[in-house]
Amino acid sequence: MRSPVCEMFGTRTAIFGFTPFREVVVALGNAGGYGVLGASRRTPEVLDADLRWISENGGGHPFGVDIVYPATSAGDDLGAMRSTLPAEHVEFVNRLMDRFEIPKGSDPDRGDLYAAHRLTMANARAQTEVALAHDPSFVVSALGVPPPDIMDAIHAKGAFVGALVGSPKHALRQVEAGVDVIVAQGNEAGGHVGRISTMVLVPQVVDAVGDVPVLAAGGIGDGRQVAAAEALGAAGVWLGSILLTTVESQSAPVVKRKLLQATSDDTLVTKSFSGKSARVLRTPWFDAWESREAPSLLKAPLQGLLVSEAMTSMVENEHDLVTSPVGQIIGMVDKEESVGVVMDRLLAQYAAARTRVG
Amino acid sequence: MRSPVCEMFGTRTAIFGFTPFREVVVALGNAGGYGVLGASRRTPEVLDADLRWISENGGGHPFGVDIVYPATSAGDDLGAMRSTLPAEHVEFVNRLMDRFEIPKGSDPDRGDLYAAHRLTMANARAQTEVALAHDPSFVVSALGVPPPDIMDAIHAKGAFVGALVGSPKHALRQVEAGVDVIVAQGNEAGGHVGRISTMVLVPQVVDAVGDVPVLAAGGIGDGRQVAAAEALGAAGVWLGSILLTTVESQSAPVVKRKLLQATSDDTLVTKSFSGKSARVLRTPWFDAWESREAPSLLKAPLQGLLVSEAMTSMVENEHDLVTSPVGQIIGMVDKEESVGVVMDRLLAQYAAARTRVG
Repeated sequence: MRSPVCEMFGTRTAIFGFTPFREVVVALGNAGGYGVLGASRRTPEVLDADLRWISENGGGHPFGVDIVYPATSAGDDLGAMRSTLPAEHVEFVNRLMDRFEIPKGSDPDRGDLYAAHRLTMANARAQTEVALAHDPSFVVSALGVPPPDIMDAIHAKGAFVGALVGSPKHALRQVEAGVDVIVAQGNEAGGHVGRISTMVLVPQVVDAVGDVPVLAAGGIGDGRQVAAAEALGAAGVWLGSILLTTVESQSAPVVKRKLLQATSDDTLVTKSFSGKSARVLRTPWFDAWESREAPSLLKAPLQGLLVSEAMTSMVENEHDLVTSPVGQIIGMVDKEESVGVVMDRLLAQYAAARTRVG
Repeated sequence: MRSPVCEMFGTRTAIFGFTPFREVVVALGNAGGYGVLGASRRTPEVLDADLRWISENGGGHPFGVDIVYPATSAGDDLGAMRSTLPAEHVEFVNRLMDRFEIPKGSDPDRGDLYAAHRLTMANARAQTEVALAHDPSFVVSALGVPPPDIMDAIHAKGAFVGALVGSPKHALRQVEAGVDVIVAQGNEAGGHVGRISTMVLVPQVVDAVGDVPVLAAGGIGDGRQVAAAEALGAAGVWLGSILLTTVESQSAPVVKRKLLQATSDDTLVTKSFSGKSARVLRTPWFDAWESREAPSLLKAPLQGLLVSEAMTSMVENEHDLVTSPVGQIIGMVDKEESVGVVMDRLLAQYAAARTRVG
């Protein structure tokens, strides 16, 4: 898939991939794609080390960084925020942890296994500063409009600014703020999502933003879907969930195993994961939160603070209820393969689909 | 879009359209598409009259009929079933009707404005018998596997059997039962839906069913989406919501007006409309049913019986809360146009998208 974004970013293909893992960023670059590192689980110090590692091991391929710019946040002091959690909610979490035999005692602030509660603007600013020192060519807002001074700082370094959106209205707002590339992310995607599906969203965003290139995200993992995204008017695609089970992915083995077994029917959108609508691997834990026994959900980041110990414990202890943000495309993956193999197959499928449509 | 289904059905394009209105069936045939009449709101007598009208006014174009074959039903006696509704539920409906000032006294069994409670197998059998007398070339199951004797009767008349499915598992079940064409309907569609989006569903269904042609449904209303469906492996498309606001559509004016104003964010999937997951135009009525104040939802067809008076009243009285089953594509329509104009634009967009992809 060649398009104007190939020239913008100096890549062979317009296939971008979001990943929380530096190893996948490098593998994507080597396979002709463009890797974007998700910063959210990293302190500025860890982000600094990982971006240095990418620069040293990435073979000179360009790369991007994905940062959450939360519009509102209750503050930066996790301890102070945690003390404001309602007793009813804390008790419900304790009851669920007892019922599902989720061991207590995990460090809820550990952050490398679960980080939805740490999405503060202070952290985003620190991450942006660290990232820009490593010369990424793309800084993408996972959520929210980047503040004007951050937008200026990224542009001053010669990098492009991108933003994930779930509606044409949000796309317009981002373009008006100066964003260079829109990632139109459908409801079938993993993580934080809007309500509109990729099939319906992409043409509307393309029509709304004029000349600004649009990448299609959500439900893309097979070359047929890449060709479909192109038919919808996208200038490229944004992979995500399809990379979580690759050899290079550092997902915990228990998470990888569950993802490889999942069908496309095994995810759900819930606000109980982070306080904002997010698509995750469905487990009885989430069903309990969606049931009438649950208290009303807290807003972000308080809901994230509320569940951070349980979420961290599930991964640390390889608990059956372990989950992950993941999109519906995970149902099309059933074995662990290298990023290179995934990309080669995707490009071959894409070529075949183009021939069929053309 | 030409494919093997054009030869099967003798059409110029592989563009099928589902509609509750006989006028739209005829207009689709005249515009080079293939119209499928939704039977659910019709008694066998009305269906008989409408199919005769189509035969007399359809210019000889082939047409289909869409029938619900419910796997289970509480019976055929609406009065007897209504007497089993729990008091708590009846009271909640009364409270909602008072709160929203929805006039009482509408005939809940009228059926031409709201019919989710009348979906019984006895009705489906009677509809099928009437339909086959008018020589449709396609009988489509909107829900459920048609019983073997019905499947045989349709095939004996030389017609094809189709079935709407929302997962690869259901597609396989239908093909094993002898269905000739699968309609893979994504979660963004209107009416009864599964959880998987069109982008993710179609390739999986295509892979599952081998040589059986697959039509893509859900989120198709623009020629870019037709080309995308083809890229995903579909042999054709199945329009629905995009036809509700056409000149030929007999939707109540108050419904048409609300649909033309809706964005793609203005629908929701709820079980409160019929007892099964259905995507409808969002209103405060449905928000109340999704809230914690609502009693647990009844199964189909009891939930439909419970709300049938209110649903009928909303249309009869042009109430603000009037709703309709509708898919997310409705956000791409903002004016009333003839079916011919919609089809011409769709085909032009499709040709442009093919050129871009190819």
